[in-house]
Amino acid sequence: MSEEIVVIEGDGIGREVVPAAVSVLEAVGDFEFVAAEAGDAVKEETGEALPQETYDTVAGADATLFGAAGETAADVILPLRTAVGSFVNVRPARAYPGVDAVRPETDLVFLRENTEGVYAGHEDRLSEDLSTLTRVVTTSASERLAEYACEYVRDQGKDGFQVVHKANVMRETDGRFRDAVVDVADEAGVETEEVLMDAFATRVCLDPTQFDVVVCPNLAGDVLSDLAAGLVGGLGLLPSANVGPDNALFEPVHGTAPDIAGEGVANPSAAILSAAMLLDHLGYADEAENVRTAVESVLEDGPRTADLGGDAGTEEVTAAILDRLD
Amino acid sequence: MSEEIVVIEGDGIGREVVPAAVSVLEAVGDFEFVAAEAGDAVKEETGEALPQETYDTVAGADATLFGAAGETAADVILPLRTAVGSFVNVRPARAYPGVDAVRPETDLVFLRENTEGVYAGHEDRLSEDLSTLTRVVTTSASERLAEYACEYVRDQGKDGFQVVHKANVMRETDGRFRDAVVDVADEAGVETEEVLMDAFATRVCLDPTQFDVVVCPNLAGDVLSDLAAGLVGGLGLLPSANVGPDNALFEPVHGTAPDIAGEGVANPSAAILSAAMLLDHLGYADEAENVRTAVESVLEDGPRTADLGGDAGTEEVTAAILDRLD
Ligand SMILES: CC(C)[C@H](C(=O)O)[C@@H](O)C(=O)O
Ligand SMILES: CC(C)[C@H](C(=O)O)[C@@H](O)C(=O)O
Repeated sequence: MSEEIVVIEGDGIGREVVPAAVSVLEAVGDFEFVAAEAGDAVKEETGEALPQETYDTVAGADATLFGAAGETAADVILPLRTAVGSFVNVRPARAYPGVDAVRPETDLVFLRENTEGVYAGHEDRLSEDLSTLTRVVTTSASERLAEYACEYVRDQGKDGFQVVHKANVMRETDGRFRDAVVDVADEAGVETEEVLMDAFATRVCLDPTQFDVVVCPNLAGDVLSDLAAGLVGGLGLLPSANVGPDNALFEPVHGTAPDIAGEGVANPSAAILSAAMLLDHLGYADEAENVRTAVESVLEDGPRTADLGGDAGTEEVTAAILDRLD
Repeated sequence: MSEEIVVIEGDGIGREVVPAAVSVLEAVGDFEFVAAEAGDAVKEETGEALPQETYDTVAGADATLFGAAGETAADVILPLRTAVGSFVNVRPARAYPGVDAVRPETDLVFLRENTEGVYAGHEDRLSEDLSTLTRVVTTSASERLAEYACEYVRDQGKDGFQVVHKANVMRETDGRFRDAVVDVADEAGVETEEVLMDAFATRVCLDPTQFDVVVCPNLAGDVLSDLAAGLVGGLGLLPSANVGPDNALFEPVHGTAPDIAGEGVANPSAAILSAAMLLDHLGYADEAENVRTAVESVLEDGPRTADLGGDAGTEEVTAAILDRLD
């Protein structure tokens, strides 16, 4: 193991949970860590939320672990997704035994298109009264996502996935998305179920076990994965991976949590689970599993941070996780 | 009372729940009902899901009660919203005592912009690979919605409302929406809280009592109100109003429910609660309250349809509601 992992703590609790995740990576492997800066703090200093140097370092690395950015979040995370060439944002949302959840039976993975939709939106101010945004959907990006989804479900020994869209209104754009995804899956012999975006929102609350692997356009994936976060008890436990062809960026789904930042009480689980996804990405499946198992074990009966009703700090929880590694 | 109410049953369970709602309207007032057709069935017969005659009848009426349409839903409901000049879609989502809900403390009203966003989207197929949709946001439509929201919260004796948007990504369009809404509220002395669309999805699951009256762009309102429907136990109880300056269309949020259509077992509550919103709109506040109270009373301890775990039919539930009217 000598891969180069870029580490960007960012702002707020990013400065607490990322070091926790790095200590776990150090415990299971032998990586070269390269620190880089992005977010509100570096913008205050230098005028730039995402220095070119950070962008270049991330683009040239094997993987990046990112914490969170504050006000500048969109200015940081959207270009960094481009820097790693990410075409899919992988967002598992599952409830853990021992953790309070609105829907404890939730176990979903969102595969979110990560390059287009309204995020590629060109915006124009056409008059005093009127602005427009050009939403972009291509067959090629939709197919690439679908190919990833097919591999993903095969790897997991599953039969198929759900495709979420709003093609009854966005007939041409989401119609193109849906057709491309379904065609790729059909050819690969992978089953698909189509679900309208609004119907998905109702149905996932009523019974999340109806769904499994959920393939969505960019904004739908943003909103529906955050909805699933609500069902499993909040953002504190959700990791994510921005995956490209040969580079990737990993980040907890939560933000900077300014209300508790600096107090050493943030839950490091989402960042550590993101590090586990990073290990998987680099090919260290056993190490990834080792980390995940330790996190789950601590969530079940170990020390807890305040968001989970406990009074342990970030360091105590991290130490417990390190302690339970095989 | 001699207002003309257009009645469109549409397809599926629309043909069962709309007659139930009409019988309740007949019990509390003296209206002139005009039947009109729209949906899959009339399309099969005539080739048109929304005959011009229906459009004109709706446009010229005082109010319309609509059931549901099947495959043709978008071809029917979107032009009908235009026919009544609707600029806001009012969607209350509340849990009822006696009815199982994921979040029994939910009591929200969504005020959804009803004319633009991606719904006004002009779509283009630019190449073999690429399609675009032009999302439209105007200050004037946003202000009109905000004026309605200000009146709405004042009528209800509330201090303010939440504004949902995704202006961190759609800076120009949702930025325009947010600024226009907040400016109107500020001038009217109404408080506003801004919530990002994705954060709203998480937070409403964790604690719906954080929110109250929720003002959204068109697609956000579609998805987030359906999410709230999930939290209160499904679409079976949710009414809605498409409100224009002097005409309006009322519809249950649920669809045609093809699996149970024709069996006489559909829950008529959402359609009857939509009729109560219609009564309010026409100025019959006491009659509206009378209907709402009867529905709530039956939901609490009266006969129940299968969706609520009972075995009563549509007619039995409707008879119980009629029986409990003052
Ligand atoms: C910060 C924001 C631009 C971002 C997004 O909308 O993608 C965030 O919500 C996320 O999901 O990572
Ligand atoms: C049928 C569809 C076009 C419609 C919408 O998206 O507005 C429906 O979902 C609704 O919310 O009334």
